[in-house]
Amino acid sequence: MKSDEPRARTTSGSALSHIDRRQRLREVLRAEDLDALLVTDLINIRYLTGFTGSAAALWVAAGDGAEETATVLCTDGRYRTQAAAQVPDLRALIDRRYGAALVALGGRGRAGFESHVVTVDGFDKLAGAAADVELVRAPNRVEKLREVKDDSEVLILERACAAADTALTALIETGGIRPGRTERDVARDLENLMAEHGADGPSFETIVAAGANSAIPHHRPTDAVLADGDFVKIDFGALVAGYHSDMTRTLVLGKIAPWQQEIYDLVLAAQAAGRQALAPGASLRDVDAAARDVIGAAGYGENFGHGLGHGVGLQIHEAPGIGSTATGTLLAGSAVTVEPGVYLPDRGGVRIEDTLVVRPDGPELLTRFPKELTVID
Amino acid sequence: MKSDEPRARTTSGSALSHIDRRQRLREVLRAEDLDALLVTDLINIRYLTGFTGSAAALWVAAGDGAEETATVLCTDGRYRTQAAAQVPDLRALIDRRYGAALVALGGRGRAGFESHVVTVDGFDKLAGAAADVELVRAPNRVEKLREVKDDSEVLILERACAAADTALTALIETGGIRPGRTERDVARDLENLMAEHGADGPSFETIVAAGANSAIPHHRPTDAVLADGDFVKIDFGALVAGYHSDMTRTLVLGKIAPWQQEIYDLVLAAQAAGRQALAPGASLRDVDAAARDVIGAAGYGENFGHGLGHGVGLQIHEAPGIGSTATGTLLAGSAVTVEPGVYLPDRGGVRIEDTLVVRPDGPELLTRFPKELTVID
Repeated sequence: MKSDEPRARTTSGSALSHIDRRQRLREVLRAEDLDALLVTDLINIRYLTGFTGSAAALWVAAGDGAEETATVLCTDGRYRTQAAAQVPDLRALIDRRYGAALVALGGRGRAGFESHVVTVDGFDKLAGAAADVELVRAPNRVEKLREVKDDSEVLILERACAAADTALTALIETGGIRPGRTERDVARDLENLMAEHGADGPSFETIVAAGANSAIPHHRPTDAVLADGDFVKIDFGALVAGYHSDMTRTLVLGKIAPWQQEIYDLVLAAQAAGRQALAPGASLRDVDAAARDVIGAAGYGENFGHGLGHGVGLQIHEAPGIGSTATGTLLAGSAVTVEPGVYLPDRGGVRIEDTLVVRPDGPELLTRFPKELTVID
Repeated sequence: MKSDEPRARTTSGSALSHIDRRQRLREVLRAEDLDALLVTDLINIRYLTGFTGSAAALWVAAGDGAEETATVLCTDGRYRTQAAAQVPDLRALIDRRYGAALVALGGRGRAGFESHVVTVDGFDKLAGAAADVELVRAPNRVEKLREVKDDSEVLILERACAAADTALTALIETGGIRPGRTERDVARDLENLMAEHGADGPSFETIVAAGANSAIPHHRPTDAVLADGDFVKIDFGALVAGYHSDMTRTLVLGKIAPWQQEIYDLVLAAQAAGRQALAPGASLRDVDAAARDVIGAAGYGENFGHGLGHGVGLQIHEAPGIGSTATGTLLAGSAVTVEPGVYLPDRGGVRIEDTLVVRPDGPELLTRFPKELTVID
């Protein structure tokens, strides 16, 4: 299938700088008559500034002309040097009150705050910081921008996916997946191989599920020993420069049984249908249905109990969610997973998952390890 | 020093069951005239029930007599089986509204909620769920209970600390720390060795900081190569059954320079002073000062820019915080770190950290790797 082949990048024509991202956010703020947005989610702060410390708040001034000089990153003394190095283009305030310090500094006007992140107790501190600042709920404004990846983000995601592809290939070639090894052994080797091939770490706790365990959608690796005839379901990813890859492959050890072949082929077909449904403007629910209907028509609808996919980027799960109750549509430039599964309790299960970027001329596949059934003799 | 030697356990005489923990919480609630507490922090839910899923809320009824039958865990369909297995003693509600579903089920009365966890948007959902439930801020009630570890928790912490001790010993004995290797190599080997020796994973991202990097308190491992004459600062821990160990050791490669010996001896003395100050009822600020004053008196006060320690348990950082601006006192049974450091920018730094349990007859040392300077030839 065309979308499965490595191909030239269909770029969105943009590699946004942090300043570009802040300018896009300012357009949103001005359209809502906000003078500023107080950003307290650390991932959002990283997206907008490059800062990776563990404690900070960011005041993004919306105003025109002097907005960059009125935009301030607040952190504490531990991160003084790091903030200067990572965010040379913004003023830094060193104050352990973080958001409240920025509200006090802002002084007045209409400021949005991330009401999906700020706690009830945290809001009290913000509200008490400056009498003349009107705090307005403004949830998910930055997350919405993050949903569309720019070219620099896709490049990093591509590196993360390549590290995962290469690691799985190397693991299989060196005999790392074979009867007698434990799920834990396989998970550890895979994580080490990803690190050797450019990952900063795993993007989440690697899932290796053998035999009947493969029927558990989110099984954690145990000392269970791989055996001939097992499905081995491996769901894993690499973390590179803050970005997460996500891929699942299900292999078979030794000879494949007819029931295994049946559900493997079914999931493979459903996954292809899901991938083909990825298009800018497609309803999230329809994308889910494209894959789910294939499984349902074969009589296995009850055995696919989770959503079809999710956005990936600076978080392993982010917008959009692709499921049967999702609302909204896909955006060009979104990076998403497509991961249908069929799970037969106490027997075994199959999930096949890719990470792809939604493009006008067909999805761009980032996880390129083959999806044809791999049988390890 | 006596407290440094492995010794018989001074028990607090208690290994609390989940029901015991809920009963202790109920005493707190009744003293505050609360009919229930809505627990939405997942770590707190794990502490009170054993449930480890990624989405849940818990309604702890305070009333006497039928309080266990009126206590309900709410999760979603993904965790139906897991909830039944992990929490057989409580009623489970399957509802994706989680906390709001429990408030609606509770129906009336005065219910505390975790105002330090619930977001502003999340509170709206709770408040809209039942008109006759009065929601009252009740932050950190469970965290306060968690501050005192019962015997079953200390046993697990001990296993986590032992995995870390054994891994570091094995790494040194097999020549894993030597000139020519990178910080990343050392971190990866140490994490693998912990896994081999019983850890479920690292308790946080392992810090390996060589040479001048050792002057950065929270350096992340890079491809920097270890060289003769380097300090190698290693801050790491093992995760076992949800509990985190935390230990730092600073080694020297090859010959030690006089400036290195000076700050090593200083930090060692400060750390001993900090450990000796650990006692039930001791002011947190005084414990910090006990170590800080040693460093200050030697003229290095400016080079110790962080707090002395923190609680450890189901989180790597939890109550109490031991620092110069802390309020409150140490409780018998608290598990805490003592980790002074001296950092000389662009030259190198030393931190020495243990995890200990506060006991009436002197702290119980859980991290037992020697603190005498280890020089690797």
